[in-house]
Amino acid sequence: MSEYFPIVEISRLSRYIGQQVSLRGWVAHLRSSGKIRFVVMRDGSGLAQGVLVKGHLPEKDFDAFEDLTLESSLQLTGLVQAEPRAPGGYELQVTGLTPIHIAQEYPIQPKEHGVGFLMDQRHLWLRSPRQQAIMRVRDEVCRACRDFFHDRGFVLIDTPILTPTACEGTTNLFETDYLDRGKAYLSQSGQLYLEAAAMALGKVYCFGPTFRAEKSKTRRHLTEFWMVEAEAAFYTLEDLLNLVEDFVRFIVVRVLANREPELTLLERDPAPLEAVARPFPRISYTDAVAKLREQGVEMAWGDDLGGDEETALSRMFDAPVMVHRYPRQAKAFYMKADPDNPDLALCVDMLAPEGYGEIIGGSQREDDLEILLERLREHNLPREPLEWYLDLRRYGSVPHSGFGLGIERTVAWLCGLKHVREAIPFPRLIDRLYP
Amino acid sequence: MSEYFPIVEISRLSRYIGQQVSLRGWVAHLRSSGKIRFVVMRDGSGLAQGVLVKGHLPEKDFDAFEDLTLESSLQLTGLVQAEPRAPGGYELQVTGLTPIHIAQEYPIQPKEHGVGFLMDQRHLWLRSPRQQAIMRVRDEVCRACRDFFHDRGFVLIDTPILTPTACEGTTNLFETDYLDRGKAYLSQSGQLYLEAAAMALGKVYCFGPTFRAEKSKTRRHLTEFWMVEAEAAFYTLEDLLNLVEDFVRFIVVRVLANREPELTLLERDPAPLEAVARPFPRISYTDAVAKLREQGVEMAWGDDLGGDEETALSRMFDAPVMVHRYPRQAKAFYMKADPDNPDLALCVDMLAPEGYGEIIGGSQREDDLEILLERLREHNLPREPLEWYLDLRRYGSVPHSGFGLGIERTVAWLCGLKHVREAIPFPRLIDRLYP
Repeated sequence: MSEYFPIVEISRLSRYIGQQVSLRGWVAHLRSSGKIRFVVMRDGSGLAQGVLVKGHLPEKDFDAFEDLTLESSLQLTGLVQAEPRAPGGYELQVTGLTPIHIAQEYPIQPKEHGVGFLMDQRHLWLRSPRQQAIMRVRDEVCRACRDFFHDRGFVLIDTPILTPTACEGTTNLFETDYLDRGKAYLSQSGQLYLEAAAMALGKVYCFGPTFRAEKSKTRRHLTEFWMVEAEAAFYTLEDLLNLVEDFVRFIVVRVLANREPELTLLERDPAPLEAVARPFPRISYTDAVAKLREQGVEMAWGDDLGGDEETALSRMFDAPVMVHRYPRQAKAFYMKADPDNPDLALCVDMLAPEGYGEIIGGSQREDDLEILLERLREHNLPREPLEWYLDLRRYGSVPHSGFGLGIERTVAWLCGLKHVREAIPFPRLIDRLYP
Repeated sequence: MSEYFPIVEISRLSRYIGQQVSLRGWVAHLRSSGKIRFVVMRDGSGLAQGVLVKGHLPEKDFDAFEDLTLESSLQLTGLVQAEPRAPGGYELQVTGLTPIHIAQEYPIQPKEHGVGFLMDQRHLWLRSPRQQAIMRVRDEVCRACRDFFHDRGFVLIDTPILTPTACEGTTNLFETDYLDRGKAYLSQSGQLYLEAAAMALGKVYCFGPTFRAEKSKTRRHLTEFWMVEAEAAFYTLEDLLNLVEDFVRFIVVRVLANREPELTLLERDPAPLEAVARPFPRISYTDAVAKLREQGVEMAWGDDLGGDEETALSRMFDAPVMVHRYPRQAKAFYMKADPDNPDLALCVDMLAPEGYGEIIGGSQREDDLEILLERLREHNLPREPLEWYLDLRRYGSVPHSGFGLGIERTVAWLCGLKHVREAIPFPRLIDRLYP
């Protein structure tokens, strides 16, 4: 029986230099050089290199090296040394090696694989350093969002996923039978519910999965994605612009501060993120159209800003650009009209720089019952299932505003990813539901 | 035009004593006493009392009091004074009152209403002090969960809601058409996906909505509820018991420390929560059955612990009790058998005290490919849709364990609620999908 040494995580090795420890994890790389064997090992917290010198460990442990394969699990025991040339920066002078499970031939090899293949192997692909780094950035982004709202007194309100009505049409909604109560639809947004909660708690946010059964096959679309949404009583569009500017700046600063090693591994140039400074540019839809036309983009006032127009526009600025006051006709029924020009909605989209497109959409909400009823008629929406929402304009209506930020698009931007599918652990796309 | 004073939240009034400020919010209570008028106002952050004395404010502002109704929105301006007898502890000597919106007759009156009525009015009911307090406790519980895992190096992995297979049968699953790709099912648990992620990142957690299309009409069941789940490579059942004990203790301590005013408002006796001390009692299923029989509960070894048995058992202890090693036959296919007795599963349920029943379920997972295949056959489960899950036992399998905690049951316990429906903002029950 071998002596017992503390089992430590690789990320904590710096505290154990000169001591004997045990590591547990998986084989990331194997190589031999004369009489020396090297095992690069990962444990989810980091990488470390084990050095096996014949005679410095029991013969059966040294021989066990021959059985190891990529992704086999094992326990290594040895003396910790700093070694800047080793992957991860630390080396173990190995005194014991115990295989736990010898892996079959691992499907993902250190070579180019097609994306379709890697997506089929998503459950294994997550083990790659690149995918791990993206998940850690995602974790940081999610945490930053929650910290931001908590620090400012917003209360978390988890809005429902199963909703009784398809208040903006059922075309892009996933539908399910709700026991004996008819159809239910998977939520596209928690906004309407957040508005109710904002009248109770003043400032609220939700953060959960949302669903769009949209047949869009672009690098910015998922059928299931995560969104953080906030709503605040007494906030005007102006307050909202300030809030989202602070919010996005906060996320960028946090990721730069806490996820530098991950950004480096992802070969993400930090310069464009470091250049994201307040104030963010603010431009009206009308001025945006004019700017795009100057650059030769053919479009008429009233046209939607599509992916291409968003990309062109966002490339004009270093920081995320806030495009406000879109034509009201193209926007949702709940947006408040601009009192200075009722053809415009008091709304904002934020476009990330470097061509990443829309990451935030928000607006001041219509707070007058009669106008809201008129909007429902204009949009041909049934009134009865929205009676509860109309109640918010019957009992102490107040000006209020809110927004939603798409997590995967934000992570894709911060990590410099080409496609949002890598920004979520198990992506759901129009042609992908597995694994 | 009146002088401009800072607009402040009621929760910050203590910093403004002796100063003029403006508050914005809703009428919680109105009364007159001779020539004095009182407006108790809420703004989501707290309660404050405005005192109107004729002659101390413009006459039209004084007269505006007559128009106010319960839940009308308004802005009050005045001098801040500490007043221990006032609701909230502060009073405003009002110098200006501006109604924003006069509410129609508010449906929820200060009297007893039936639960069905209140649930129909959930969008308004949330405004009551009691419901606000529950939401704040819920926020604290959610935050404590995330802090606990973050502090211990667990990485957030959002697992998918839309899943391709109903690996434990479709009876209790919500089903939807997934575009042209056949059926998808709403997730009951992120566990299988978390296991894949744990092989990549070592320690992971997820936190999201889960769904059960179960026709259970009890005070502990929702069709849509939130669950936090964690999974850790190299954790044995013993490690898991220690982890969940630390976890639940952490949540209780945080709620006691940060949500004392809310617990007081809810008339929740803190003594039973303060008595939740480590170590939590640990009892095997076999011993639990013996103890229940001693108390006259008729049951045979092998019977499930139902709600009544859980309640009886949890009442025997001050702290949450961890019941481990249930009969394997009654448990899920992925649980590892106890090497000391293969009829038992290496699993644990944690039952909250005071009769609140199961809040946690967890287990060590089967990590041997051949045994897992045998289990699939025993449970009549199709192998093909689980190939990806079986891969985790092909490529560097390791011992690992995990658990899930139900948020609404935990909140119901901590708040002392009779039914989980009050523990979530917009509850979904077998007979309720509105608002």
